[in-house]
Amino acid sequence: MEAKVDFITLGVPDLAAARAFYVDGLGWQPLLDVPGEITFFQVGHGLVLSVFSREDLEDDAFAVELSRHQTPPLSLSHNVGSDLEVELLYAKAIEAGGAPVKAPIRAAFGGFHAYFADPAGFLWELCHNPGWTVAPDGTVQLGAVED
Amino acid sequence: MEAKVDFITLGVPDLAAARAFYVDGLGWQPLLDVPGEITFFQVGHGLVLSVFSREDLEDDAFAVELSRHQTPPLSLSHNVGSDLEVELLYAKAIEAGGAPVKAPIRAAFGGFHAYFADPAGFLWELCHNPGWTVAPDGTVQLGAVED
Repeated sequence: MEAKVDFITLGVPDLAAARAFYVDGLGWQPLLDVPGEITFFQVGHGLVLSVFSREDLEDDAFAVELSRHQTPPLSLSHNVGSDLEVELLYAKAIEAGGAPVKAPIRAAFGGFHAYFADPAGFLWELCHNPGWTVAPDGTVQLGAVED
Repeated sequence: MEAKVDFITLGVPDLAAARAFYVDGLGWQPLLDVPGEITFFQVGHGLVLSVFSREDLEDDAFAVELSRHQTPPLSLSHNVGSDLEVELLYAKAIEAGGAPVKAPIRAAFGGFHAYFADPAGFLWELCHNPGWTVAPDGTVQLGAVED
């Protein structure tokens, strides 16, 4: 199986709140918007993130009725080019209704980061990682950061 | 804030089991492997997925001690070009130690899909969606599927 992710589907308790946060709050432009059902956003080269109701995701994913599926912790990272951008985007995310989780601070790996949660509780990291570069063909390089 | 995801970080209860599943089971080549700490995989154009211990992710993300962070349901989709590939990869994922969640079946949207969970419980969809295309520049088109 090829190492490849094409869609990230967030199963949210309140679809309207999630849509308002991403579209009105963060200013994301939907790739495809099916009101009351699902909203898709392009979040990278060939990469789509959608907000979908938790109930619909559970109906779609589970062939048999299971007790509530527990998702282990997970974070989605949004990398930027400077510490200042981490601070500005963190303020913007909180203003948009995101929950403060970790205020901007020097990170253990030597960069600078912050965490907020979206209205459903999904964890987003805003990160300035000077050791991270993406080549024109999309290949990522992860190098050490000088402290 | 730009609509962009750069990293997907899975916070897993058993790092060795997660690494064994992705590397030995699914045959993924690590982009960067820090034994006992974190393993990174390139999973798209400029996109990285890592397996990291749940405890370390929680330590990294939370500035204050919180009661356990509950992640709402989420799925990661891996799209392929045919129904047969969905079946083959599903068998491969189960053989690799993935948990069967939904056996390959015609999907509500008109395509064909299956779900399995990795050893930590993260939900993966294997999907053949004839309405999904990716342009050379990475732009996704989501069209209707003829039933």
